[in-house]
Amino acid sequence: MKRHLISAADLTRDDALLVLDTAEELAQIADRSIKKLPTLRGRTVVNLFFEDSTRTRISFEAAAKRLSADVINFSAKGSSVSKGESLKDTALTLEAMGADAVVIRHGASGAPHRLAGWVRGSVVNAGDGTHEHPTQALLDAFTMRRRLGDLEGRKVTIVGDVLHSRVARSNVLLLHTLGADVTLVAPPTLLPVAVDSWPCSVSYDLDAVLPKSDVVMMLRVQRERMNAAYFPTVREYSRRYGLDAERFARLADHAIVMHPGPMNRGVEIAAEVADSTRSTITEQVANGVSARMAVLYLLLGGSEPAIGKEVSGWAR
Amino acid sequence: MKRHLISAADLTRDDALLVLDTAEELAQIADRSIKKLPTLRGRTVVNLFFEDSTRTRISFEAAAKRLSADVINFSAKGSSVSKGESLKDTALTLEAMGADAVVIRHGASGAPHRLAGWVRGSVVNAGDGTHEHPTQALLDAFTMRRRLGDLEGRKVTIVGDVLHSRVARSNVLLLHTLGADVTLVAPPTLLPVAVDSWPCSVSYDLDAVLPKSDVVMMLRVQRERMNAAYFPTVREYSRRYGLDAERFARLADHAIVMHPGPMNRGVEIAAEVADSTRSTITEQVANGVSARMAVLYLLLGGSEPAIGKEVSGWAR
Amino acid sequence: MKRHLISAADLTRDDALLVLDTAEELAQIADRSIKKLPTLRGRTVVNLFFEDSTRTRISFEAAAKRLSADVINFSAKGSSVSKGESLKDTALTLEAMGADAVVIRHGASGAPHRLAGWVRGSVVNAGDGTHEHPTQALLDAFTMRRRLGDLEGRKVTIVGDVLHSRVARSNVLLLHTLGADVTLVAPPTLLPVAVDSWPCSVSYDLDAVLPKSDVVMMLRVQRERMNAAYFPTVREYSRRYGLDAERFARLADHAIVMHPGPMNRGVEIAAEVADSTRSTITEQVANGVSARMAVLYLLLGGSEPAIGKEVSGWAR
Repeated sequence: MKRHLISAADLTRDDALLVLDTAEELAQIADRSIKKLPTLRGRTVVNLFFEDSTRTRISFEAAAKRLSADVINFSAKGSSVSKGESLKDTALTLEAMGADAVVIRHGASGAPHRLAGWVRGSVVNAGDGTHEHPTQALLDAFTMRRRLGDLEGRKVTIVGDVLHSRVARSNVLLLHTLGADVTLVAPPTLLPVAVDSWPCSVSYDLDAVLPKSDVVMMLRVQRERMNAAYFPTVREYSRRYGLDAERFARLADHAIVMHPGPMNRGVEIAAEVADSTRSTITEQVANGVSARMAVLYLLLGGSEPAIGKEVSGWAR
Repeated sequence: MKRHLISAADLTRDDALLVLDTAEELAQIADRSIKKLPTLRGRTVVNLFFEDSTRTRISFEAAAKRLSADVINFSAKGSSVSKGESLKDTALTLEAMGADAVVIRHGASGAPHRLAGWVRGSVVNAGDGTHEHPTQALLDAFTMRRRLGDLEGRKVTIVGDVLHSRVARSNVLLLHTLGADVTLVAPPTLLPVAVDSWPCSVSYDLDAVLPKSDVVMMLRVQRERMNAAYFPTVREYSRRYGLDAERFARLADHAIVMHPGPMNRGVEIAAEVADSTRSTITEQVANGVSARMAVLYLLLGGSEPAIGKEVSGWAR
Repeated sequence: MKRHLISAADLTRDDALLVLDTAEELAQIADRSIKKLPTLRGRTVVNLFFEDSTRTRISFEAAAKRLSADVINFSAKGSSVSKGESLKDTALTLEAMGADAVVIRHGASGAPHRLAGWVRGSVVNAGDGTHEHPTQALLDAFTMRRRLGDLEGRKVTIVGDVLHSRVARSNVLLLHTLGADVTLVAPPTLLPVAVDSWPCSVSYDLDAVLPKSDVVMMLRVQRERMNAAYFPTVREYSRRYGLDAERFARLADHAIVMHPGPMNRGVEIAAEVADSTRSTITEQVANGVSARMAVLYLLLGGSEPAIGKEVSGWAR
């Protein structure tokens, strides 16, 4: 496995399976009520968040703390970063302070990649612009595998604003690596120009695709985009691309419904669908912690310093 | 004891005494300079604060950390909650991330109660609207007992803006449970309509009540309310309901003065009274950590996972 | 050593050498990949920051966590402090909650000194107004010693806005204690009136001083001050007081370049100078963690409570 996790494309099939297997092992340990592992004691994980994202920050924080790492939260608002300090100087500062891993959320696509060029520690992309969000794809794949088994040949339909969705992009890449068949369903104005080169199919007809799907993943509609010129009216969007009870009834019996959260109930997903037993939405959150534990464990190598031996003079 | 602590009324007399006895034991351990206990290692406590309250958040954070729990702070400002995510979705998210306890401060009375309906973990009310603040009542009762012994038959006078005070309401309920006699003293416009049904007496004459009191608890005046139509002028309020040196001199020799903090010195309490040895204001803060440790310990059960045994393959 | 660290003048020569020697020992332990020491387990360090300073806060947080202390961050914005609570009440609150050390950053010169009068724990000044920043001076001295050896007789030139620089003031005091010869170089309008009484020389001619310097420390220009009446134009400032490649070439071969960060590349320091191997800027950051670990270790005494012995009834 590479030293950083910037893109879902960084992961070979073997890498991805190793993360999923590790996450499974960690989830089973947690199920036995063993929530804290000493694996990363003495390691420091910095959450460097240039955008607010409490959910993702907390998920990484919980993952790192369960592995006994020290976590330092660095919200870039109000910091010297917002006073004009360059990302490079911030990177070198965190490096110098001993960050073993930097988890970065940034509004600009490519920021984690640049960061990785400057530091010796591991960089984990926690969402960069409209580019990628690879740990979301890993937790989604992990959730699918726990529900449906091997992903080879599985049909996954991703529905919504693909254009602005780093979740969609990372999922397409990772699911392709894992052998699944992905179909994107979106209004033409909400698909990226380069979608032809993506390893997936495209459809504009949700109702035609649903009955054949093993997984339906609804993307979040960003409220701030709903009034944009390229966006349908909310009513129109909901009518054509929303997962309501009627559409839900046409899914195969084994099919599952996913959403990265937070949901707009009544817009892209009906409340009764979100709360059904075939919805995996809260499982995804729980699996997010396991998947991120696996990523941190594998990137940081898990070699715990021998505390209490060489340092006994300090311990008293 | 119930699984949650939403209201002081959730506590039976036995429950309340158990919390106080546990807090006493924990305070004595701290006095022996043993500040860190392994009791809640591996447990995660989330501080979910929809209102700023640094003091209360820090007190819970210190309490949880002394019990070796992992603490995650979730300030709801700027989070997806403020972008319209429902409290329910937030609750399910925290639950899924493995929160063993959620400490919630919310501007709406009843929010902790609703939260408790959605999660399996424990919910601790850290103040909801004008409703309740049960751990404040516990730390107050603990402070009284440390100073005065058993509370049975003790006369406690609570003075000030009872109408908006969750501290007053929780104290009335808990002190009644513990057998104390509570008298509320407030301007008529600052008493709730339903006060007749509360288990306490009401007086408008502070000077008549003071000499008979074992405890005088001054409520904080909210500066933002001082200009409201229902509020007396600050000068008038201070003259009639403030605890100045003259009134202080009329207290019984053994009587103590309490305040939940932060104080408006010179408004509801004179500086020299606040700083006297019979004021318990900083003791209340210290006792707050012990009382909250006791609550977290009793709610979370204190069964520490056997780290280092089953997980030795991970520990290295 | 005193109980608090408010000013670099609090340190005798022996104290300062003890901090530097301790920092060296801690840095060498970290170099052996032992990042976590149990020394301060059970101790609580509060970061009380009335001004934003993510770098300094993170450095203290990392230092305290590596020593296994619990860290509580208290940003005074939005807290009851900003609602009018006095610094004294805040101090007594933190004290009562069991803070063993309070690391304070405050906009008013003298605030840490006042704080120290109210608490039993240790107070560490992390920058107060234009007054002092003693741990910055310690990490700077530590960096010089690691690069150049003993500081006795070394020539240190400090360049820039001395008037507003707590870094300059603390460095002058500490370097004098350690036997170095300090020269300040600044526009006359950016020197304090009382500089005559400081134990250092003053020059207005950077080019005359540079060739004789062992250390050149460039101060940060505060962007918000660049438009003030007493400030030269940025171009003029940069021309006369900036360290560009040409000036850098005139330094002695062994001389080093320092900057407390964050830098304004192209204003007080050229990018190529900042990135040269003789620049110690990222070393200073790393050394900051070691120096702050040393300070916390020496102030808090390092006597770890015997966890797991007397408290076994709680541990289960």
